[in-house]
Amino acid sequence: MNDEISVADLTLEEKASLTSGSTFWNTQAVERAGVPAVMVTDGPHGLRKQREGGDHLGMGDSVLATCFPPAVGLGSSWDVDLVERVGEALGTETSIENVAVLLGPGINIKRSPLCGRNFEYVSEDPIVSGVIGAALVRGIQSMGVGTSLKHFAANNQEDDRMRASSDVDERPLREIYLRGFQRVVEDAQPWTVMCSYNRINGVYASEDPWLLTKVLRDEWGFEGLVVSDWGAVNDRVPGLAAGMDLEMPANGGVTDAQIVAAVHDGSLAESVVDVAAGRVLDLVAKSQAGAGAASGPLDVEAHHALAREAAGRSIVLLKNDDAVLPLSKDSNLAVIGAFAETARYQGAGSSMITPTKLDNALDEIRALSHAEVVYAAGFSTAVDVSSEQAAALREEAVAAASAADVAVVFAGLPARLESEGYDRDDLDLPADQLALINAVVAANPQTVVVLSNGGVVALPFADAVPAILEGWLLGQAGGGATADVLFGDVNPSAKLTETIPHRLEDTPAYLDFPGDFSHVRYSEGLFVGYRWYDARRFDVAYPFGHGLSYTTFEYGDATAAVTADGDIEVRVSVTNTGERDGREVVQVYTGLPAGAVQRPERELKAFAVLSLAAGESQQAVITVRRQDLAYWDIRVDQWIVEGGEYVVDVAASSRDIRSTATVTLEGDPVSLPLTRTTSLSEAFAHPVAGPILQATMAQMMGGMEGASSVMPEGVDMMKMIGSFPIGRLGMMMSMAGGEADPSMIDGLIAAANAPQ
Amino acid sequence: MNDEISVADLTLEEKASLTSGSTFWNTQAVERAGVPAVMVTDGPHGLRKQREGGDHLGMGDSVLATCFPPAVGLGSSWDVDLVERVGEALGTETSIENVAVLLGPGINIKRSPLCGRNFEYVSEDPIVSGVIGAALVRGIQSMGVGTSLKHFAANNQEDDRMRASSDVDERPLREIYLRGFQRVVEDAQPWTVMCSYNRINGVYASEDPWLLTKVLRDEWGFEGLVVSDWGAVNDRVPGLAAGMDLEMPANGGVTDAQIVAAVHDGSLAESVVDVAAGRVLDLVAKSQAGAGAASGPLDVEAHHALAREAAGRSIVLLKNDDAVLPLSKDSNLAVIGAFAETARYQGAGSSMITPTKLDNALDEIRALSHAEVVYAAGFSTAVDVSSEQAAALREEAVAAASAADVAVVFAGLPARLESEGYDRDDLDLPADQLALINAVVAANPQTVVVLSNGGVVALPFADAVPAILEGWLLGQAGGGATADVLFGDVNPSAKLTETIPHRLEDTPAYLDFPGDFSHVRYSEGLFVGYRWYDARRFDVAYPFGHGLSYTTFEYGDATAAVTADGDIEVRVSVTNTGERDGREVVQVYTGLPAGAVQRPERELKAFAVLSLAAGESQQAVITVRRQDLAYWDIRVDQWIVEGGEYVVDVAASSRDIRSTATVTLEGDPVSLPLTRTTSLSEAFAHPVAGPILQATMAQMMGGMEGASSVMPEGVDMMKMIGSFPIGRLGMMMSMAGGEADPSMIDGLIAAANAPQ
Repeated sequence: MNDEISVADLTLEEKASLTSGSTFWNTQAVERAGVPAVMVTDGPHGLRKQREGGDHLGMGDSVLATCFPPAVGLGSSWDVDLVERVGEALGTETSIENVAVLLGPGINIKRSPLCGRNFEYVSEDPIVSGVIGAALVRGIQSMGVGTSLKHFAANNQEDDRMRASSDVDERPLREIYLRGFQRVVEDAQPWTVMCSYNRINGVYASEDPWLLTKVLRDEWGFEGLVVSDWGAVNDRVPGLAAGMDLEMPANGGVTDAQIVAAVHDGSLAESVVDVAAGRVLDLVAKSQAGAGAASGPLDVEAHHALAREAAGRSIVLLKNDDAVLPLSKDSNLAVIGAFAETARYQGAGSSMITPTKLDNALDEIRALSHAEVVYAAGFSTAVDVSSEQAAALREEAVAAASAADVAVVFAGLPARLESEGYDRDDLDLPADQLALINAVVAANPQTVVVLSNGGVVALPFADAVPAILEGWLLGQAGGGATADVLFGDVNPSAKLTETIPHRLEDTPAYLDFPGDFSHVRYSEGLFVGYRWYDARRFDVAYPFGHGLSYTTFEYGDATAAVTADGDIEVRVSVTNTGERDGREVVQVYTGLPAGAVQRPERELKAFAVLSLAAGESQQAVITVRRQDLAYWDIRVDQWIVEGGEYVVDVAASSRDIRSTATVTLEGDPVSLPLTRTTSLSEAFAHPVAGPILQATMAQMMGGMEGASSVMPEGVDMMKMIGSFPIGRLGMMMSMAGGEADPSMIDGLIAAANAPQ
Repeated sequence: MNDEISVADLTLEEKASLTSGSTFWNTQAVERAGVPAVMVTDGPHGLRKQREGGDHLGMGDSVLATCFPPAVGLGSSWDVDLVERVGEALGTETSIENVAVLLGPGINIKRSPLCGRNFEYVSEDPIVSGVIGAALVRGIQSMGVGTSLKHFAANNQEDDRMRASSDVDERPLREIYLRGFQRVVEDAQPWTVMCSYNRINGVYASEDPWLLTKVLRDEWGFEGLVVSDWGAVNDRVPGLAAGMDLEMPANGGVTDAQIVAAVHDGSLAESVVDVAAGRVLDLVAKSQAGAGAASGPLDVEAHHALAREAAGRSIVLLKNDDAVLPLSKDSNLAVIGAFAETARYQGAGSSMITPTKLDNALDEIRALSHAEVVYAAGFSTAVDVSSEQAAALREEAVAAASAADVAVVFAGLPARLESEGYDRDDLDLPADQLALINAVVAANPQTVVVLSNGGVVALPFADAVPAILEGWLLGQAGGGATADVLFGDVNPSAKLTETIPHRLEDTPAYLDFPGDFSHVRYSEGLFVGYRWYDARRFDVAYPFGHGLSYTTFEYGDATAAVTADGDIEVRVSVTNTGERDGREVVQVYTGLPAGAVQRPERELKAFAVLSLAAGESQQAVITVRRQDLAYWDIRVDQWIVEGGEYVVDVAASSRDIRSTATVTLEGDPVSLPLTRTTSLSEAFAHPVAGPILQATMAQMMGGMEGASSVMPEGVDMMKMIGSFPIGRLGMMMSMAGGEADPSMIDGLIAAANAPQ
């Protein structure tokens, strides 16, 4: 494509055509002007490029690609370097296939564990989501191809996803649901952002100028293109005006014609079309260098090895009593559970990769073991299993477990329960699997449970079994990685990016998920995930940030200091006090106990991963950005850092605080004019109005002596009337019968707001 | 006043003047036309008529009046007949003092136990609030004087009460916060409704045409006058237009002039002034017969006796292990606690009555006892008490308890912690009182705790002490009533109208009370009070509806049948199986387990009080109104009764279900047009559109075979795409490459919506 082509060279019809697709996966070319079509395809954890001749709905058979761990796994690594390397591999595969944009990463907040698409998302916390998302974008885009940060925004359920309005107040919207997107945009400039299907406070994301232009571009400085989620366009013309540049997939020209008509009838400025078409041209131009640049063929083995490394860092060791793990390679093992033989490695829906190869854990365990490995299916994932069949499978497994040194049970959610397009109804593993686990551990107390699940499940057996590995969905090399961790060839280092609760009834969104009548109230507000359990002092099964290692880490005393940029630099020395090399995810949480504005007690603000040889100490230096301490102030529509003494917790998990420092920050000024709705107590604190009002009130209080004399001892009259708006004092003044002039309030306000 | 006077006889200035007060407590007269001023004064649980010459702010010394139990107590009786008799007595006192309107009852929902004014309100449940509120209105108004139903509406906290916006979704607003007001208006037509200080979803209640006109008058049929809470007027002219008829107190003529000016400049129709002034004239006319009609003087003793009867029915027996209560009159007693000597009997603020006389429990116990009654203060309610003083008081009490047969500890909240104008910070009794209770029960296991508190308190000692009486605030005769109940002269029958939780952190509004920056999100939605604890399966200290008796009641099998009016008639036989006469509050809860719309598992819908002699059986016949089963449907802005099998629980408390019946109701029709946002699964169910769409989709699914073949076994493709709006099917159709015409959707919609 000629780099000199601009919208000025194109007709209105050509410009309009650029702003929608030509097929399910391609943009429209303008052959006359030499503008080629480019291809964008699904991700995010691998390339899903549909084969030529596949179905017309874009869902069928796709070319082979490496299936890396989905976000639920990869995010649990908390490992920015690793994630960036995975991104580079994804970018390479994208480039080899001559694709311009890989449609990911997805970083929506896991508001409820029931969301059917949680396996595609990173965390219940916006900082983890944003940092991991930015690393993926950097990695992919380093190969000259683009990303699509999705699903923007507040798309946190599948139920009724194309209509449901996420009714969310602006503070949680800004501080929880948008913060991760802001981080990725500001740090990594994804080529595209994908707007989501849902509405936000009644407005379709695809038609929301506040979201797509004011916030995304004006505030965050986004320079790329906004593409619709596939089928997310409700009304094309207002969408274009709002900042939704590219409709996908193709619409058969129907909505392009609407745009042309709207320009002709004057309801849409042609400059709006120019801007959107110009962004498509920019995308096409940028992709010319990268798409197709990488030389094939794909190095299948190298990428599989990376997938195995990534999967190994994604497995969370939840529990390991009596050092049951790692297993000795000389132990006779009973490997139980259908998922050992048939891996559950990705979720259903648009992100399904056709993997280049696929490990299973049983073979990989056998490959590493020096002793006997007996397999029993234990349960069936088929839709219809009779109770007799289930009992027979269970008996066989119990027999195998009884005869082995250690039993390893691969349990998890059947694939049909986790998909794009619908949500789960509960947190439960299938009853036959729970019965199996109980029977196996009764037969052999040396039982390890390995879980495969994209969304959090309840763990009613957690007290009964000595060791649990949360394997999430691990991609095509998960079987090998699981074997690595079971035998200790890899020392687990992943930590939970979401809380595992005891019961669905304890979860924050329980009573407002998925909503009724296409409205879902985000009733938990700021208190999503661990913020909720902490605030309500609820016990949980395993807290956010939790994850064990085969070694142990000791933390020294943390220090926290304000940098020249106003950030907080946290330093802590961490020592590997065990016998094995290991990695530790060091987490930094902050709080502001004396703050005037409601906020969670403890919020993750930064983290680092240390790789420590046995016995080694390192000092972690972790920066908390000042901006990440800000709350969104609805009075002034601004981010405000509140001043005061911040508590800085350096922690191994959200409930395992190892060292606490404090640091005092100067706050951002908040400038509010005095108005008739300013309260008396607020006005008393005003430098100009305060002294005048206090004198006036003293006079009035004289008239109120009769009132205060009948009040109980200790009742604070000022507390009772402090919330009185000063605009309504006139009434009180006139009634008090003093000399105060009701109109003095207007004068007071004018004086207070006069330039000093 | 001449009954013939109408607004047509008055000048604009005179009409405007009628719509505000002349003083703190009086309306304006129009002497020229013979329109007198009338007086309205605070209540609600007694007459607070300020003496001549009191302070000008309306708070000081008032005439003697009977202080009946505040709503927190009286409501716990669940006793409509009793409440109506109390209302008659209040009306009599109002009439004797020549007052036109008693400013009550207050029936705001107890959203959080922290609300400082909860003692003035009835319940966390709208049916209890509405039924008790209506009984009070009927009783008072039967004496020819008026009431003011308050505070309308969604005024559920004191913090920032004059500005805070109660941000509440329409279903909870309608079903929880307005339902009780609707009940009182429809059943009892209060002469006036008092609009509250706060905003609702950003709009001042005093300026909200939706609230004051559409809902209150057009929907509910309110025929009276809307008066502002004192100082609630923010902007007078839009307030008048919204339906706020009378501004109180006096404003010195300032806002009357604004009204006149607005009429003159055309921004306000004079007809609006006519309507409001006409309502004031109606009120003045109505009050001529009643105010001053009752002949004085007040029968102090008769009303005190009624206050004692009412207080006796307000005391909830929370716990009574081993039949510690009732006390034998021959037992030597240690009466402990400052509240035994100095009653805590009402809350602080505008509702403070100057009582005609005031019982204290100690004297009343001594009057009934035949044995020794030793008193020890045990603690001090003074603001500053040293730890030495507290210890000395405690030691003295422990000594008294040790020497007695039974110790009775009067604990409670100091008066300064409960007031109009501010909220509590926690649920705790003072630490020295908790220490006292623990010390006393350690010294004498035969310990009874009697509580005095307007808002719910946590009861950390509940497991340790064998008997607890929740005495709330009981008015001037509470001391005698407490003695009556302690000795069994009155058998307790009150039941909780609000849940007593274990911890503040468990309460529904915990994370959204009292809000920030003048906004409070009603995040618990429908799940207020017991609806929350039940839905989340939380244990509580004592559940809603709980209350013991000195006798026992057995319930027979309940039946439920639909009446000709569509209501549900519930019948159940209840037997007093103990040795004493007693009263039982029989509660009826409903649920709709298979309902399509979210709703609480169990909601109180009706109740009855049975008075049963020892051994007696009676059949309770309790009607659940069909209208009370309706939910507010936000799609059609209407009350809708969902059809289906309702579960009808007949219960002694919300967690003590004695018998369950079921009844099947036909639902109300909900007529929704087919639109482009109708989902595929909704459209499939449409009689006209369904068959056409199913055929079309079958064709499309052919094109999707490649897609479904790659999905895991058991994934339901229809579930995945069922939420697709039919307006966006055109894209899918064109992509599917079939013969389906995208424009067929518009034809389908037209056909479906055509008159049948």
